[in-house]
Amino acid sequence: MTNSNNVNLTVIQEYVEFLVHKQNVKNIFVNGTTGEGMSLSVEERKTLAEEWVKHSRGKMHNVIVHVGCLSLEDSKNLAAHAASCGADAISAMSPSFLKPSSQDALVLYLKEVAAAAPSLPFYYYHIPSLTGVQYPLNSLVGKMQLHIPSLRGVKFSNANLMDFSLCVHGYPELEFFYGVDEQLLGGLVFGAHGAVGSTYNYLGFTTNKMLEAFKQGKLKDAQKIQCKIQEFMGFVFALGWGLPDFKNIMSLVSGIDLGPPRLPLMATWKPEHPENVKAELKRLDLI
Amino acid sequence: MTNSNNVNLTVIQEYVEFLVHKQNVKNIFVNGTTGEGMSLSVEERKTLAEEWVKHSRGKMHNVIVHVGCLSLEDSKNLAAHAASCGADAISAMSPSFLKPSSQDALVLYLKEVAAAAPSLPFYYYHIPSLTGVQYPLNSLVGKMQLHIPSLRGVKFSNANLMDFSLCVHGYPELEFFYGVDEQLLGGLVFGAHGAVGSTYNYLGFTTNKMLEAFKQGKLKDAQKIQCKIQEFMGFVFALGWGLPDFKNIMSLVSGIDLGPPRLPLMATWKPEHPENVKAELKRLDLI
Amino acid sequence: MTNSNNVNLTVIQEYVEFLVHKQNVKNIFVNGTTGEGMSLSVEERKTLAEEWVKHSRGKMHNVIVHVGCLSLEDSKNLAAHAASCGADAISAMSPSFLKPSSQDALVLYLKEVAAAAPSLPFYYYHIPSLTGVQYPLNSLVGKMQLHIPSLRGVKFSNANLMDFSLCVHGYPELEFFYGVDEQLLGGLVFGAHGAVGSTYNYLGFTTNKMLEAFKQGKLKDAQKIQCKIQEFMGFVFALGWGLPDFKNIMSLVSGIDLGPPRLPLMATWKPEHPENVKAELKRLDLI
Amino acid sequence: MTNSNNVNLTVIQEYVEFLVHKQNVKNIFVNGTTGEGMSLSVEERKTLAEEWVKHSRGKMHNVIVHVGCLSLEDSKNLAAHAASCGADAISAMSPSFLKPSSQDALVLYLKEVAAAAPSLPFYYYHIPSLTGVQYPLNSLVGKMQLHIPSLRGVKFSNANLMDFSLCVHGYPELEFFYGVDEQLLGGLVFGAHGAVGSTYNYLGFTTNKMLEAFKQGKLKDAQKIQCKIQEFMGFVFALGWGLPDFKNIMSLVSGIDLGPPRLPLMATWKPEHPENVKAELKRLDLI
Repeated sequence: MTNSNNVNLTVIQEYVEFLVHKQNVKNIFVNGTTGEGMSLSVEERKTLAEEWVKHSRGKMHNVIVHVGCLSLEDSKNLAAHAASCGADAISAMSPSFLKPSSQDALVLYLKEVAAAAPSLPFYYYHIPSLTGVQYPLNSLVGKMQLHIPSLRGVKFSNANLMDFSLCVHGYPELEFFYGVDEQLLGGLVFGAHGAVGSTYNYLGFTTNKMLEAFKQGKLKDAQKIQCKIQEFMGFVFALGWGLPDFKNIMSLVSGIDLGPPRLPLMATWKPEHPENVKAELKRLDLI
Repeated sequence: MTNSNNVNLTVIQEYVEFLVHKQNVKNIFVNGTTGEGMSLSVEERKTLAEEWVKHSRGKMHNVIVHVGCLSLEDSKNLAAHAASCGADAISAMSPSFLKPSSQDALVLYLKEVAAAAPSLPFYYYHIPSLTGVQYPLNSLVGKMQLHIPSLRGVKFSNANLMDFSLCVHGYPELEFFYGVDEQLLGGLVFGAHGAVGSTYNYLGFTTNKMLEAFKQGKLKDAQKIQCKIQEFMGFVFALGWGLPDFKNIMSLVSGIDLGPPRLPLMATWKPEHPENVKAELKRLDLI
Repeated sequence: MTNSNNVNLTVIQEYVEFLVHKQNVKNIFVNGTTGEGMSLSVEERKTLAEEWVKHSRGKMHNVIVHVGCLSLEDSKNLAAHAASCGADAISAMSPSFLKPSSQDALVLYLKEVAAAAPSLPFYYYHIPSLTGVQYPLNSLVGKMQLHIPSLRGVKFSNANLMDFSLCVHGYPELEFFYGVDEQLLGGLVFGAHGAVGSTYNYLGFTTNKMLEAFKQGKLKDAQKIQCKIQEFMGFVFALGWGLPDFKNIMSLVSGIDLGPPRLPLMATWKPEHPENVKAELKRLDLI
Repeated sequence: MTNSNNVNLTVIQEYVEFLVHKQNVKNIFVNGTTGEGMSLSVEERKTLAEEWVKHSRGKMHNVIVHVGCLSLEDSKNLAAHAASCGADAISAMSPSFLKPSSQDALVLYLKEVAAAAPSLPFYYYHIPSLTGVQYPLNSLVGKMQLHIPSLRGVKFSNANLMDFSLCVHGYPELEFFYGVDEQLLGGLVFGAHGAVGSTYNYLGFTTNKMLEAFKQGKLKDAQKIQCKIQEFMGFVFALGWGLPDFKNIMSLVSGIDLGPPRLPLMATWKPEHPENVKAELKRLDLI
């Protein structure tokens, strides 16, 4: 979505069409990890939020804008802007450079962010592998509930399914979205209310079939689909790929040139990679 | 099962009865992590293996003896002994102090261990949180299969369910036991062939009900049971407890005094803890 | 220097006087870790840089402005501003949320930052314990030198003194400042050209005596001073203290109320702590 | 010193001569990390201790036998044996698979080990990068002193020089040997009483010159020598080498075939490596 210089806004409209009509994806999480929100300036993030809201109107169900930053002031600023531009909800992760002094300090931080957009549902974004902030979520959620009236749920991007399950069952009034795409079925079996992740940009259609199968009690079918996705992810991980490469796959599958990531990310595709990726996706019946 | 001085062999017979009749546990993994195998001398491990084999005869289906050590010679010695004393299978984890130089070096190591008991099925014990050996299992299993004719499967003690699923579906001729008790249902949904873990010493009966429910396609029932177990584990983890405390729970539930762990482990129960633990187990209908 | 709401600019002038006249500190690193630069908005950082430059004029030798961010655009923006407001040099650490894809990607990132203020000396800020970016510095510096004409040196905040020494001796045309205050003497013995760190806000006078003793070849004297500083740091670390508490010590020693840190940092001093800290500083003859 | 099958005892006598006469090394730490003590059986370790004691008699000043194991019983067994075979001292690290439940548990563990050889000086072996046991040493030493009458000092293999310095100056009645060879000068400046490490097998002569220069107050000379050693270590680390490769260098420099390491270690030298290593050692005037 970005390059080293300017964010390319012109592809958003087309990309919304692609997500809605080709991937059956009806909710979008803007300025998150895959969207490189943390690599953008506050102004760039605002512009992106506005564009996504504008082009999603009447097409998507929800535009959730991620407003997490290292700076509380920036986060509050982004939260207020999200409300003013018509976003449906906001989300924030913990600051990760200077880490919270305690659970209480983190809750106070998030409380101030949420309070800057009190009318919008607030979702905590739990992604300890990237933030290094490891508090057990089921303990943290209890504290958040006491202080954040707009708390509506969590995007849970971690493999610890006991912590996830204790949240889902301990706080039935909240929503918990699972964020480890390659083991989403594990999240579903513990009660996930949905999925938010990078791969849904190009495997959304397939994943939605899995969600539907699971909902209808067809566990075997859901397993079959999840296994295919895992085979593809295994192919990707074995190449040592990360976020920049996922972006290339997004361009490849959508046919929309989403551009390179912003530095310090840099993709390392070789000329043969596009064909190889397509071949693997076809072999697994994923496109 | 041990104290700082001598291993107490006299409780094994009674403990086998407890496992079989009260917990419905019919397979045992001897000298593993919970059994503090790594804290015992080679002679102590041999004696324990013999006693478990002797008292399990006709009562248990399988006695799997863990023979992993830091020393290859010791592991080979233990493997040969396991075969000679009538064990049904052996298992070994990776050495964890001087770690394998490469996947290939690890496979060669395990090959020598397995070859010391060529007639016994061999299970690799994957527990990266304790060994620090992180190779993706689905890659390692392929290499093991080429070099270890007696390879029969893996005890997989890790939260990464994609890696687990790729193994289960990539190597249908092998068995994969899941070892993260508190999210076993996640393992089951990806095809686990069984469960090996610490909590089955006192939650075996309940867990077996969950396995049965899952097998019969009653996912809701299985979820309910798993949630109760998670609530109990959450109670335990919130107290900061670890292995020594799990042993106290084993004594408490079985009514058999299994003694303190061996140093450097040391339990830290306060006088009120036994009553608290019992109350929690009763509240959750787990005893 | 900050509180949860507004940065208090009014104390800077007085604080400069304190540093120069009471601590004998003549160079300042603005918006770094202790200064919570990463917790501030771009505007706040700009204002702080301006104020420090203004009040340091004619009093300090160098004002180095830290311009590292998660966002390349923000960093370039801050670098250009630092040049325009009269800073003597800039510095930047690696982005730490989305980490560099490679050493090359990091160098390209830093190259763009430095190029936004081509007339100012550029110092790389190496602090792997906080950024998680672990490339051996002696390898990275070689690459930086090829691409960043304004590279003048490194602030090296890490205990690995071999890496430090290889830099100092491998790149004699650059300056290497050591940033692990509590073992600065270790840095000096490997050729450190100076020291940049948090404790110099209140132990600057004492540390300068150590630097002088070392320069004059009085190693025993330098050791004695370093040991006293270590005793004090040992006292601080034993209390479990971190950055917010260091700020309290800064207020305590300077007599200037520097305010609380910004969330997610939060100090946890008890009423008796100020007296305890003062007593310890006096006992060690550090104030 | 070992291969995958048998420990080769026949090279020890010659190797002692090499250490004493070519490297000026007069103290030996047997069955430690480089000696792969943890990869050997208890019997192999006993035999090695005996052989080293026998061949060192009248030639070496001290034979320190490392008796650390995962098993307390094995460690006690090895400690008693070390005393009976004439070792000058024993040393033990913390168990690293099942880690100590607390500092107190670790002290109790070490107390039992030391008490099995009460007449021998006991040295704690602090190497957190390999054991994962991170307690600040200056706190741990205080507790050890209360419970271990034979405690004589510590082999400190860590880059944290503040912790090291607090020990050296806080416990003047004990000896502290520094174990991070490539930054030994950093240890010396904080008062190290000696050095124990892998590289002294082939850089002992050079390192002894550095120790002598430092003792005589010739800091510049000591720095020059340390820098050469660091250049060589930089060459080695850049190749990605570890323990197995250090052993090859030991064979190369001594001219004594010390054999391959035991699995799971495995060296990966290419045919050109021996010549390359020799050329680098010559270039740096290290042989």
